[in-house]
Amino acid sequence: MTNLLIIGGSDAGISAGLRARELDSTVDVTLVVADSYPNYSICGIPFYLSGEVADWRNLAHRTAEEITATGINLLLNHTATTVNAINKSVQVVNQQGQEQWLTYDKLMIGTGAVSTQPRIKGLDIKGVFLLHSMDDTFAVHQYMTTHQPQRAVIVGGGYIGLEMADALTHQGISVTVVEHSPTVMKTVDPSLGQMIAEKLQQHSISVINSTEINTIELQGTELVVSGSNGFYRTTDMVLVAVGVKPLTDLAMSAGLKTGIRGAIQVSKKMETNVPDIYAAGDCTETWHRLLNEYVYLPLGTTAHKQGRIAGENAVGGNREFAGTLGTQVVKIFDLAVARTGLRDLEAQEARLNPVTVEFETWDHKVYYPGAKKLRILVTGDSQTGKLLGAQIAGHYQGEVAKRIDVFACALFHEMKVEDLSELDLSYTPPLSSPWDPVQMSAQAWVKYVNKSKF
Amino acid sequence: MTNLLIIGGSDAGISAGLRARELDSTVDVTLVVADSYPNYSICGIPFYLSGEVADWRNLAHRTAEEITATGINLLLNHTATTVNAINKSVQVVNQQGQEQWLTYDKLMIGTGAVSTQPRIKGLDIKGVFLLHSMDDTFAVHQYMTTHQPQRAVIVGGGYIGLEMADALTHQGISVTVVEHSPTVMKTVDPSLGQMIAEKLQQHSISVINSTEINTIELQGTELVVSGSNGFYRTTDMVLVAVGVKPLTDLAMSAGLKTGIRGAIQVSKKMETNVPDIYAAGDCTETWHRLLNEYVYLPLGTTAHKQGRIAGENAVGGNREFAGTLGTQVVKIFDLAVARTGLRDLEAQEARLNPVTVEFETWDHKVYYPGAKKLRILVTGDSQTGKLLGAQIAGHYQGEVAKRIDVFACALFHEMKVEDLSELDLSYTPPLSSPWDPVQMSAQAWVKYVNKSKF
Repeated sequence: MTNLLIIGGSDAGISAGLRARELDSTVDVTLVVADSYPNYSICGIPFYLSGEVADWRNLAHRTAEEITATGINLLLNHTATTVNAINKSVQVVNQQGQEQWLTYDKLMIGTGAVSTQPRIKGLDIKGVFLLHSMDDTFAVHQYMTTHQPQRAVIVGGGYIGLEMADALTHQGISVTVVEHSPTVMKTVDPSLGQMIAEKLQQHSISVINSTEINTIELQGTELVVSGSNGFYRTTDMVLVAVGVKPLTDLAMSAGLKTGIRGAIQVSKKMETNVPDIYAAGDCTETWHRLLNEYVYLPLGTTAHKQGRIAGENAVGGNREFAGTLGTQVVKIFDLAVARTGLRDLEAQEARLNPVTVEFETWDHKVYYPGAKKLRILVTGDSQTGKLLGAQIAGHYQGEVAKRIDVFACALFHEMKVEDLSELDLSYTPPLSSPWDPVQMSAQAWVKYVNKSKF
Repeated sequence: MTNLLIIGGSDAGISAGLRARELDSTVDVTLVVADSYPNYSICGIPFYLSGEVADWRNLAHRTAEEITATGINLLLNHTATTVNAINKSVQVVNQQGQEQWLTYDKLMIGTGAVSTQPRIKGLDIKGVFLLHSMDDTFAVHQYMTTHQPQRAVIVGGGYIGLEMADALTHQGISVTVVEHSPTVMKTVDPSLGQMIAEKLQQHSISVINSTEINTIELQGTELVVSGSNGFYRTTDMVLVAVGVKPLTDLAMSAGLKTGIRGAIQVSKKMETNVPDIYAAGDCTETWHRLLNEYVYLPLGTTAHKQGRIAGENAVGGNREFAGTLGTQVVKIFDLAVARTGLRDLEAQEARLNPVTVEFETWDHKVYYPGAKKLRILVTGDSQTGKLLGAQIAGHYQGEVAKRIDVFACALFHEMKVEDLSELDLSYTPPLSSPWDPVQMSAQAWVKYVNKSKF
């Protein structure tokens, strides 16, 4: 009987445990969770803080009871501190400081990531928050309840920063977003970043670009946030959301090799360099299907896939991770912004020959009421004709998210841009056009590339 | 300079003309249209009759001016009557009965389909309508305006019949739908047909299954519709929508071979058996990508693809039609029902080894407000593990249409059901789950098949 020990109770760890139990009901799975919140949807935190999710318990993908019902042993409020890979054991310590050693046949490390702490003075002042864990969430929630902040500054205009800008606006708080890049959401092209900025401004959010925050100070009962370009703002709370970094203290103790940004190196089977130790999720490097190399790209979807594979292989499977395409979507107010694959700049860096064509159309036949405008960027290789990536922005009811998924599926299969017209996609006037916007934008790309060749 | 003559101004014909002109600006394209309405969206007719589209002119995909601006010569209100393939000419006759012969280097026949006339007595009575062309549409519209019908019977519970049931209900008319099969929308599985029936009933539509209409009679100012199982209903109007058949009189005059249901036989290049004559759209057979054989499956999306290929090949191209997957979606009130690929029964008939698993989940994380329930049927081959088809029903804002397109893209690439979990699909709590419903349903299929194997 295999004894599978899993460190980390978020996406990767839970997925590994569930998959192992699904395939082999004899496997003994123990899941060590540092807090009391296994299998929480940390992507859902902004929607709890916005008030749209009334009870934080609803953020659990599964309850502790549901997890243990699958036969997984949960060890909550225990932090794993050391791995001894020679005698295959892990030291854990509980919140009272009591230590114990757990043995394993197979170990799966899914310790995730922690918020990056930027070099800003005053991060420890009350009212200033990083946001990643459930405990962070409770701290913010309690502060909002007790202090009733009227104003907030959000440092970082990425996914979390902007979802929190939406969330706090929803709570009636006046929000300023400060981003060090020239446009917010630097993971998409500037024209889409500009659309997002306009959407934020429509909701009275102040968007400050190209600005670094240096200092947060307490002045009386107010916080003062100052930065480059003369930025100066008094506020009632500050959220810092400038990204995450892999949490690998435990991995280091086991002698696991790390690479990009300190993330654990793994094979496609999610094996580390140490026998019988797997790793998955935000603490690991991720194989990129298009770049054909490892990157650091922590995403919940990827953590689920990698964890599932680690769990399968830990019980004798032989599955490989197919690789990420970096597919992502975010909803800010009623605007959905999605991407998959490579952007033009990323493809250039990979020494491909990208051409990007921007195209605008409606999600469905415009004669039928409620048509939403979609802006679609298609990136393809001008030499091979292959699709490299796509970005879409538009009203979330314009099926932005699943249209990017059609691109993602096409990318997965290395389709040429022109061959997207061969896909048999669904059509009815209220929901699409005889050529879906995905195909119209692909045709626009082909037309542009052919014209520029002659 | 090639002279391309196209007969038919709907999806296939226009697509052929546009593509030919796009690729070769020297080609002389003449498009013969039997009525005054080139490039109309006949799929949009129900939305005009519902009142949602105020002006019928908005149903045009392109105006006549936009078409001629591409360099296509439009010959409206001319019907092609005879092809002489020896001297490469086509006789056309205008509405005054004047005949002329047009010559061609390449001929493309896109004469489409006409409504099937079932064996019902009384189809010629005033107030009884077939619905396929713009002229049919005007006749219905005028009748509705002048007679203000309060009640309607719709014969046929397929796509058009149900869209019209929705449309007439929208106009305040009390609707009865009569379908000869045991459930409406027999193109999807009965459990989804049942969902549709419930949706219709919620909107006070009377749904009568397993019933054949035999007779329509005029009694005073009322129409009396009677059929099997003692069906008897007085009404103010009757719409008959029991399918279409290919319109091939012209093709027959040219000596074109026809096959299934009398549709024109074509190669994957959309060539007919007569040199220099292409055919595309609802008047032709359609290559089915999964069945590996020809079928008769008239769809606007397919007509666009086939026409585009015919137009490309007519000016020297060498493109082949990749085949249909039968992808379709319909919206009835707020319910979208979509399918792609083969249903269980169809796969059985094709001597495959289908297993179908029905799965229910939410379109997005249920903790975020507004989650919509999706019912998904996944059909896969138990021997090869390959995906064969999928059906989805749910609220149209649950991205039903584009989720079926993810399945369609997976089918196009002959994916195994279990490999759908490898797809890197987009996720944010308001729009999906870390495993998209597409993937959850695929995992449910795999789990079911593996269990039943042991």
